[in-house]
Amino acid sequence: MLNFSFQNTTQIHFGEGQIKVLSDAIPKTSKVLVTYGGGSIKGNGVYDQVAAALSEHTWFEFSGIEPNPKYDILMKAQDLIKEHDIDFLLAVGGGSVIDGTKFIAAAALFEGDDPWDFVAKGAAVTKALPLACVLTLPATGSESNSGSVVTRDGNKLPFMSPFVQPQFAVLDPSVTLSLSDRQISNGVVDAFVHTMEQYLTYSVNGKVQDRFAEGLLQTLIEEGPKALVAETKNDLEVRGNIMWAATMALNGLIGAGVPQDWSTHMIGHELTGAYGIDHARTLSIVLPAVMKVCTEAKREKLLQYADRVWNLTEGDEDSRVSRAIELTEEFFKTMQVPTRLSDVDLGEADIDGLIEKLTQHGMVKLGEHGDITPEVSRKILVTAL
Amino acid sequence: MLNFSFQNTTQIHFGEGQIKVLSDAIPKTSKVLVTYGGGSIKGNGVYDQVAAALSEHTWFEFSGIEPNPKYDILMKAQDLIKEHDIDFLLAVGGGSVIDGTKFIAAAALFEGDDPWDFVAKGAAVTKALPLACVLTLPATGSESNSGSVVTRDGNKLPFMSPFVQPQFAVLDPSVTLSLSDRQISNGVVDAFVHTMEQYLTYSVNGKVQDRFAEGLLQTLIEEGPKALVAETKNDLEVRGNIMWAATMALNGLIGAGVPQDWSTHMIGHELTGAYGIDHARTLSIVLPAVMKVCTEAKREKLLQYADRVWNLTEGDEDSRVSRAIELTEEFFKTMQVPTRLSDVDLGEADIDGLIEKLTQHGMVKLGEHGDITPEVSRKILVTAL
Repeated sequence: MLNFSFQNTTQIHFGEGQIKVLSDAIPKTSKVLVTYGGGSIKGNGVYDQVAAALSEHTWFEFSGIEPNPKYDILMKAQDLIKEHDIDFLLAVGGGSVIDGTKFIAAAALFEGDDPWDFVAKGAAVTKALPLACVLTLPATGSESNSGSVVTRDGNKLPFMSPFVQPQFAVLDPSVTLSLSDRQISNGVVDAFVHTMEQYLTYSVNGKVQDRFAEGLLQTLIEEGPKALVAETKNDLEVRGNIMWAATMALNGLIGAGVPQDWSTHMIGHELTGAYGIDHARTLSIVLPAVMKVCTEAKREKLLQYADRVWNLTEGDEDSRVSRAIELTEEFFKTMQVPTRLSDVDLGEADIDGLIEKLTQHGMVKLGEHGDITPEVSRKILVTAL
Repeated sequence: MLNFSFQNTTQIHFGEGQIKVLSDAIPKTSKVLVTYGGGSIKGNGVYDQVAAALSEHTWFEFSGIEPNPKYDILMKAQDLIKEHDIDFLLAVGGGSVIDGTKFIAAAALFEGDDPWDFVAKGAAVTKALPLACVLTLPATGSESNSGSVVTRDGNKLPFMSPFVQPQFAVLDPSVTLSLSDRQISNGVVDAFVHTMEQYLTYSVNGKVQDRFAEGLLQTLIEEGPKALVAETKNDLEVRGNIMWAATMALNGLIGAGVPQDWSTHMIGHELTGAYGIDHARTLSIVLPAVMKVCTEAKREKLLQYADRVWNLTEGDEDSRVSRAIELTEEFFKTMQVPTRLSDVDLGEADIDGLIEKLTQHGMVKLGEHGDITPEVSRKILVTAL
């Protein structure tokens, strides 16, 4: 195991009916800005539950934070924050709303010229407004981590700061019942790939981390498909297991003390930035190709994955590895997401532009060994054709 | 899954050489009281490392906190705290030192007459001195939870408060190399039983919690025995996996949202209180008997445990359950701990006194269903003869 420091201070309030805890969890003296997306929370009752819980608070709202939250839209919240002396942000939504709200929180107290600097130029975030969230779409893990991804002019880039770690997160699985199949499958696939990116590298004998990662993968494989078929899709236990697995997949725990490989995400971000493809659908296209191109580097872990997650113990090593990759693709297909660039109408001609963007964004030494150069990324995209 | 609120704010600094982080992790303006046990930290270099890291701090020391820390000894720290205006406690030791230091921290700011009241009478702990720890013996999980167990006049009782949750914990596996075989086996068994007590109840379909618990059990079964045999006992990876598993076993995570059964610990505490038997050695005696007496209530989980932890898939249900219990006992024997009361020279004549104490301490409705009455506890002790 590698040395690590790990802390996750976010308090989780999990279960049906938990939105009501907002009433006590946010100080009554706060001036709260509730942030949300396109308004689906008004259709499914979540907005009303939040409003009821905040009936004794002073609060305002900022809506319109879309998937892949955009700098220009997020910056519009700043006037509202100044005008009303907002001192607490409550994000109500999925990963995009939470990520966008993290940007708003840090931008509000940023002392440089342009808040984009802490995304694109690595300027330090030294403070941020306190924030919390009500999660409506299990997927990104943003509800209990310090990361955020925002987009400006087609550039989709991450930033991290402990100052934007949510103080608490409300996870009510019943809230996810109104999600579309597409939102649910995207969420399950996102969480699955997060787990893989902290697991499928090389072994450092981190037995607890490996077992936990495998447990999350197994849970998502078992429960994900149930959320898409009529008989089980409204089962709150299924929704609860998916929700908790997605949070655990990216709260820092399974990645503490082990190598990580975020190449799938970084290559995927370029697909979203350039073509607007749903985030998770870029991951389901890129991950199988990463597994194929990097088979040798990831061999030991691929065999362990084949054995423990897919129960593949027969046949020679190569066939077990191939079969595990196939089963991963089959799982993605069951989750109704694409696994090839051609599935989203992209072809060889699009690869140059993607590699150019990747290089421009400094993503030139990806992978657990830093050896996924733009040439290797090209090979990955070609493999994904 | 049951509704839950979960938060664990303790920062973990894990790995060889991490004691040096104390230098920055404790404010330089603090007046620190370093607490420790019988002095083993002076023999293994830990004391020197702590002293070096605190070279720019003002600090004092309080030693002599023994296993099953005693009220009378712990209260002696109070004069030192007042005399030197101590405002930060650093526990350097195993679970007993950390538990004792939690009591000291709460007692220092307790406003009632006698701090024993928050242990024995449930008086509220409303504040405590901040504390952190350097863990030297992986076992209790006390390094990152809010619980503590202290003893007065043969009464061994727990208390819990978020105010005594350590701010941070240093986990350096190399520190454990100087432990005796007995200390290591006690630690592994303690962590194993903690996990079982949050796992072996009835199913609420908490898939993540179950997989995580099973992963910890598997890790302890794989790594525990290696720490006792010459070829592998000094392997830092083995030590690291045991250390991290023990912390994860009782930091609140695997128990969030699932029923729990702490009957083994509560009955075990009476064995320690009355006869001074090592804590873990009471657990290895009581747990197999709990598994046998409560087989029907725990049937579904026992079968899952048999399958996933011990790979038992052949034979009828009863034989799989029996075999899983046998294998648990065999694991304890491999870890060189007793599994019967007779192994520690206790017999039927001792049971009345134990049941009397248990009743006196209010432990009359134990177990996940609250149906382990003193009569059932008696049956458990008889089964453990």
